[in-house]
Amino acid sequence: MDFWFSIGSTYSYLSVMRLAEVAAATRITFRWRPFNVRTIMREMENIPFANKPVKAAYMWRDIERRSAMYGLGPRLPAPYPLEKLELANRVAIVAAAEGWVADYTRAAYRHWFEEGDPAGSEPNLSRSIEESGHAPARVIELANSPAGTEGLDAATAEARQLGIFGSPTFVVGRELFWGDDRLEDPIGWERGSAALHARPQSAS
Amino acid sequence: MDFWFSIGSTYSYLSVMRLAEVAAATRITFRWRPFNVRTIMREMENIPFANKPVKAAYMWRDIERRSAMYGLGPRLPAPYPLEKLELANRVAIVAAAEGWVADYTRAAYRHWFEEGDPAGSEPNLSRSIEESGHAPARVIELANSPAGTEGLDAATAEARQLGIFGSPTFVVGRELFWGDDRLEDPIGWERGSAALHARPQSAS
Repeated sequence: MDFWFSIGSTYSYLSVMRLAEVAAATRITFRWRPFNVRTIMREMENIPFANKPVKAAYMWRDIERRSAMYGLGPRLPAPYPLEKLELANRVAIVAAAEGWVADYTRAAYRHWFEEGDPAGSEPNLSRSIEESGHAPARVIELANSPAGTEGLDAATAEARQLGIFGSPTFVVGRELFWGDDRLEDPIGWERGSAALHARPQSAS
Repeated sequence: MDFWFSIGSTYSYLSVMRLAEVAAATRITFRWRPFNVRTIMREMENIPFANKPVKAAYMWRDIERRSAMYGLGPRLPAPYPLEKLELANRVAIVAAAEGWVADYTRAAYRHWFEEGDPAGSEPNLSRSIEESGHAPARVIELANSPAGTEGLDAATAEARQLGIFGSPTFVVGRELFWGDDRLEDPIGWERGSAALHARPQSAS
């Protein structure tokens, strides 16, 4: 199953941190697909939290409650929005190509959400790369080369083409499931769950 | 538990249609609280679907899948947005005061979502009132009197005061849970679920 995400999305914290456990429990393989959700949201004038203090306050409280459900301990509110969202995700593109994107993304979110150190900026960036077993200088240079910049643009174009407009989005076949709270739905879908595939039984 | 809703909200269809079953299964009493979500969303410039065709297409597909999960059979997309949202909810205010708001709201959504007949407009309005055992002429007159207009304004002010910005919202004590997909969370909260009340066990 494809797991489309942008480092910078708040609710994606929940999915990033619990996905390994979900994968182990369900034996589903998740393909981590970084993209730039900010580009797509700007195109759509989809601005969920900026200048919406009531909704933003709700979001942090909701994430706090759901973190407790999952046994996570973030310090909220985390710094938001990210200044270096694009760089954070260009590094993720490099990491995905090299096979260590899950480790890097978890480290980036852990430092951001649990220690207040914004993803994409230093020291988060270098620490998250190092903790994934790689050399920050090499990776950041690659992330700033066409491998990173064009790689992120291509992934974002692919996400746009799929109809993705938010992070996280889980994709099974042509079905999109948007939001950490939808993670359990595509699992049922992937397994051919009768409940999800069934046609409605009555109109009452 | 308070169930705040506006007839006119799409996702509220799911909660409106399944709430009686949830109440029976959990023995939780829901107090149906109509308000005008459109007023609050306009104030916040919170425009989730209008002029957002990709997000709107996702919403209808998501509602279709979740309807199947709940055994509901809507004909989607339903007419949207509602032209007579305010009248539909003024009638709900009258119905709430008289004790038949759940029947009326279910009827209004059934005709709207399952037969394509917009809530708040005729014939939906009179049919939904009649099917709830009341005389449309009397109820509509009351809905257009201060009992309906000021009643809806007062309920909307109360919702705003609580920090409500969307429909449906479930309220337990001072905790808000927004969205049909959050209905199971306040049930755990109301019952003092260990999972929801627990503090995080680790920061890993």
